[in-house]
Amino acid sequence: MRKILSVRAWWNTYVRVSLPAVCFVWQIAMIILFGVFIRYDKESDAHWAEYKVKNNLTDKDNDFYFRYPSFQDVHVMIFVGFGFLMTFLKRYSYGGVGFNFLIASFGLQWALLMQGWFHSLDLTTGKISIGIESLINADFCCAGSLIAFGALLGKVSPVQLMVVTLFGVTLFAVEEYIILDLLHCRDAGGSMVIHCFGGYYGLAISWVLYRPNLHQSKRLHGSIYHSDLFAMIGTLFLWMFWPSFNSAITDHGDGQHRAVINTYIALASSVLTAFAISSMSQKRGKVDMVHIQNATLAGAVAMGTAAEFMITPYGSLIVGFCMGIISTFGYLFPFLEKTLKLQDTCGVHNLHAVPGMLGGFIGAIVAATATEEVYSKEGLINTFDKEGKYANRDMGTQGGFQAAGTCVSIAFGLIGGAIVGFILKFPIWGDPADDHCFDDEAYWEVRSSFPPLDGAVSL
Amino acid sequence: MRKILSVRAWWNTYVRVSLPAVCFVWQIAMIILFGVFIRYDKESDAHWAEYKVKNNLTDKDNDFYFRYPSFQDVHVMIFVGFGFLMTFLKRYSYGGVGFNFLIASFGLQWALLMQGWFHSLDLTTGKISIGIESLINADFCCAGSLIAFGALLGKVSPVQLMVVTLFGVTLFAVEEYIILDLLHCRDAGGSMVIHCFGGYYGLAISWVLYRPNLHQSKRLHGSIYHSDLFAMIGTLFLWMFWPSFNSAITDHGDGQHRAVINTYIALASSVLTAFAISSMSQKRGKVDMVHIQNATLAGAVAMGTAAEFMITPYGSLIVGFCMGIISTFGYLFPFLEKTLKLQDTCGVHNLHAVPGMLGGFIGAIVAATATEEVYSKEGLINTFDKEGKYANRDMGTQGGFQAAGTCVSIAFGLIGGAIVGFILKFPIWGDPADDHCFDDEAYWEVRSSFPPLDGAVSL
Amino acid sequence: MRKILSVRAWWNTYVRVSLPAVCFVWQIAMIILFGVFIRYDKESDAHWAEYKVKNNLTDKDNDFYFRYPSFQDVHVMIFVGFGFLMTFLKRYSYGGVGFNFLIASFGLQWALLMQGWFHSLDLTTGKISIGIESLINADFCCAGSLIAFGALLGKVSPVQLMVVTLFGVTLFAVEEYIILDLLHCRDAGGSMVIHCFGGYYGLAISWVLYRPNLHQSKRLHGSIYHSDLFAMIGTLFLWMFWPSFNSAITDHGDGQHRAVINTYIALASSVLTAFAISSMSQKRGKVDMVHIQNATLAGAVAMGTAAEFMITPYGSLIVGFCMGIISTFGYLFPFLEKTLKLQDTCGVHNLHAVPGMLGGFIGAIVAATATEEVYSKEGLINTFDKEGKYANRDMGTQGGFQAAGTCVSIAFGLIGGAIVGFILKFPIWGDPADDHCFDDEAYWEVRSSFPPLDGAVSL
Repeated sequence: MRKILSVRAWWNTYVRVSLPAVCFVWQIAMIILFGVFIRYDKESDAHWAEYKVKNNLTDKDNDFYFRYPSFQDVHVMIFVGFGFLMTFLKRYSYGGVGFNFLIASFGLQWALLMQGWFHSLDLTTGKISIGIESLINADFCCAGSLIAFGALLGKVSPVQLMVVTLFGVTLFAVEEYIILDLLHCRDAGGSMVIHCFGGYYGLAISWVLYRPNLHQSKRLHGSIYHSDLFAMIGTLFLWMFWPSFNSAITDHGDGQHRAVINTYIALASSVLTAFAISSMSQKRGKVDMVHIQNATLAGAVAMGTAAEFMITPYGSLIVGFCMGIISTFGYLFPFLEKTLKLQDTCGVHNLHAVPGMLGGFIGAIVAATATEEVYSKEGLINTFDKEGKYANRDMGTQGGFQAAGTCVSIAFGLIGGAIVGFILKFPIWGDPADDHCFDDEAYWEVRSSFPPLDGAVSL
Repeated sequence: MRKILSVRAWWNTYVRVSLPAVCFVWQIAMIILFGVFIRYDKESDAHWAEYKVKNNLTDKDNDFYFRYPSFQDVHVMIFVGFGFLMTFLKRYSYGGVGFNFLIASFGLQWALLMQGWFHSLDLTTGKISIGIESLINADFCCAGSLIAFGALLGKVSPVQLMVVTLFGVTLFAVEEYIILDLLHCRDAGGSMVIHCFGGYYGLAISWVLYRPNLHQSKRLHGSIYHSDLFAMIGTLFLWMFWPSFNSAITDHGDGQHRAVINTYIALASSVLTAFAISSMSQKRGKVDMVHIQNATLAGAVAMGTAAEFMITPYGSLIVGFCMGIISTFGYLFPFLEKTLKLQDTCGVHNLHAVPGMLGGFIGAIVAATATEEVYSKEGLINTFDKEGKYANRDMGTQGGFQAAGTCVSIAFGLIGGAIVGFILKFPIWGDPADDHCFDDEAYWEVRSSFPPLDGAVSL
Repeated sequence: MRKILSVRAWWNTYVRVSLPAVCFVWQIAMIILFGVFIRYDKESDAHWAEYKVKNNLTDKDNDFYFRYPSFQDVHVMIFVGFGFLMTFLKRYSYGGVGFNFLIASFGLQWALLMQGWFHSLDLTTGKISIGIESLINADFCCAGSLIAFGALLGKVSPVQLMVVTLFGVTLFAVEEYIILDLLHCRDAGGSMVIHCFGGYYGLAISWVLYRPNLHQSKRLHGSIYHSDLFAMIGTLFLWMFWPSFNSAITDHGDGQHRAVINTYIALASSVLTAFAISSMSQKRGKVDMVHIQNATLAGAVAMGTAAEFMITPYGSLIVGFCMGIISTFGYLFPFLEKTLKLQDTCGVHNLHAVPGMLGGFIGAIVAATATEEVYSKEGLINTFDKEGKYANRDMGTQGGFQAAGTCVSIAFGLIGGAIVGFILKFPIWGDPADDHCFDDEAYWEVRSSFPPLDGAVSL
């Protein structure tokens, strides 16, 4: 054991072979698999010119125009939103935004394949067709792994993050298939499949990788004035564009419209209660930036399933109200670390895992209580996609399946994360020693000196 | 009096009770009022599935698709644009972006109700219907209060800001009703109802709250290198998305198209004249970041009313040209502070009040000179909404009403602001002492030390 | 000669006369020229109300709705993307984002005129009609000059940059006319007309303006921790919105849809290979922020021509894969500086010139190999605009013309840049002395002191 440790110390954070190797091998694999499987769908293929004439359509009926604005908003959330939210640490801002960039770029390629195999593989030709909706779904699929990154921030190597993403995207595609296709749940904004899964996936990995001596890098574990402002860029772009996230792949028309309204007002409500609890918790009522950066978003996470339902505007406000409180309390009392020995750098438990889980159950309740009176007959069919063999599933049953879906996502997160965590324990991945966590020096060329650790002159 | 002052000193910046109380009470009030009044409109309700069939529409005719991209741009302006523009102070960046986040989140809920009561209350059911256009209008309505925040930045407590927003949104809804509905003015981008009102509202409050000893916090009143760059994020997102702001609720078709073109080129013109005047005013021709962050936007403020009119492209350039000059001169010669004892932290007078007022009068002139020859018969009816009892109002009269509308917005701003200012003088709101203005230490947990005040090591 | 030099030293960076003069003269010229030439097009003119009825259209058929979301993304790329990408220097961040703002604002006005004269001048009325597509094209046209700015960053005065933009936009309009109209090339995302031209234009200017003693300002030539984060804002907004850039003016329908998909996946691929080469090149495998900020974008530059073609998804991945490698190697081995005495501040050669040139040739190859089988008969006509006198041009010939177009853009860049460079050598422009390059003190009022040059306390 001592030998392994000393080898590990020697290799410590040396990724000059492993990181390029992983990037090259996986990117080449992507090229080959794309070559074999991926094709343009009928709306992005040049044959559209003939297809549209045959079907009496115009160019402006191309689905592209009804998805693209939301797609770009989601894209901004993935790269700027998640990326900058993770720049808050005083000396790990490169790693926060940079590794997020790396793993999202890999993840979305792998997601196009994995989701394609499960959802749009044409069994006669063996090809997967991709279009604008596939790109949105790929961004969603990445989000699960980026959430997991939040729990691991500063404690793992980029090579480990690539592994987290490889398995994270794979597990996502499977649980999504089970939840959306087999259980026929509705989950437009992914409370279950994205946030609940991603949160517990990251937490389980972090639990396995527990570092008893992490206090050795305590000096680096915190923000400075301007790193908090960079993080606010991330927070605000997530906050503003979350209505697009929850509506991007809903049904056209009223579903998309309603998902935007519900998410918008749930978010507004979260902000007020997050400020309130944050202020109450501090001597003299001072507000804490950590809460504002995170808990203000919890309302939208919890609306991920129910946003397209007729939850009513005041229902959305109530969800946001409660989530702002619950999430802020989670940051105030990080009991996981104390009771479970689980280190959660960004507080993924409070922002994604718990609000995601609750969002799943909220969705189940709202679905179970849906009536024809509220939705209209056609509206109920559209909203819950009651077609084919699901045409006669009553709403109570639908609610039960929604709740079951939430449990599936938790199970996938916990079990998958535990397995991935054990894989990442092998001493070959170049992860930093306990006293070099949260330090960009480990994996980045940093040309300027860092500031004193108390930030005394840093603004 | 001495007793009150000493109590006030004791309470100074203590908001542990008042801030949570205001947030909770107002958020709970919102939930109750939303429960009583707010419902989805027909395009966001599940009954749309039947409505569209009955009216021979498709999902893609849902108004959502024609408003949503502009809505998101406006949303970015409200939270990132205004928020980051106010991070320029060296030690008040948390407060700039954070309190903007808080009051906009409250304001847009309250705006949905207030504007709803005035504009879309169904008198038979007693309900307000909301859809995507309501969300845009709510963001607009907030903007008035956020502009007022600019004049007060660093000198008031978050509780006071919540009061400013409560009254600001209320006053906005009333003056908007008078100007747009009773006077039947056109004001797509809100030169009058948003900028002119918001500017004078903030200035009047600031005038009442005049602090003769504000020089005691002079050391904090200025920017450092990187706080100026954060502010440029705000400036640029405002600048880029202002065409969406001025076009977001215009008529579909040519009106929206034209508003974008006019705003885009007016803004471009403002940039050149702002640089020119800034350079002329300084020894050796050095440019001042304060001017670039603010005066470059003045052209768009002044196009808020006329953007949808046939002002012609060169007309827009001329407006931008003049506004860049006027606004920069305003920053160079802050006569208000000297002559009126009015402290205007962000220069709201130069960026919003004056350009907004001038924009109202420009709109009046352009309206008064509109002819059927230029607009076509149908175009004139569409652009000026000449329907019902306004069908026969001649264009000269319309111009007169537009000018009257501008005066109404100024009056509402000044009188409303003066009243709110007096309310805010009560010594119960936790506002900072003169030597603690512009200091995030007052209301935020700041974990890292601040830099030396000369910024010597700060970059 | 000595006398000229001493005069020059005296005038050094004094722009109090020249900068305002240039801004005023050119802005007034714009107003006059707009007055003479520029009018609203039929979709943004109030006559649209009658036009649409006559042509049986609705407001929602206005082209505005199908271009505006992409337009705004492109607009963000021009001002925030290019602007913040150039903030990376430790003491030239104001200049990076501020001068970009100035010259883009001038450039887009001039571009509306120049492109209008070449493309949409109505010879009977003598008027140019502008609409949303003109605004996108104007942003594109500016991009050429902004790229050139990247090569000159920190070494020229704002007056010189205005001259660079005046000639850059003019040259752009001419070469674009030759390439797109006379040679009938396709170049949706502008690999040739924007990146290749802009890159070589900037490099040629920089070559003429070579400064043998630039090492005197070496202390300022580098980034510090937070300036790199500001630059990442630019990188990410460019990266995320590049699918809009490459698709903004493509054919409606499948062309626009396909351009988005191809660009999105080429970019993802570039990220992995940029990380790989960056890590391989450094001791212990540390990643270099310079590479991540720039080389990750090279895939999209090289897809500028071929994005709308049927290059296949895996073809796009391969392009991104190779460009990430080539571009990163370019940053690792800046041979231009050593062999050609050419100072290229931002590495424009590696990010724009070479990938743009290669993108032109990739486009030529993909065009030459296009078949009716892959595109369908109608699809081939649409994609390559095979109409009128070009209806019978075979695809091999088209490929040849595409390659010729690339050569035209290089020639325009090199020759035009050399001439402009010589104009800029006159000692009248207020450019900084060698030891004051890369220093905001030259042209900006900087109120706070700068940090120590080793960045020791700066974070």
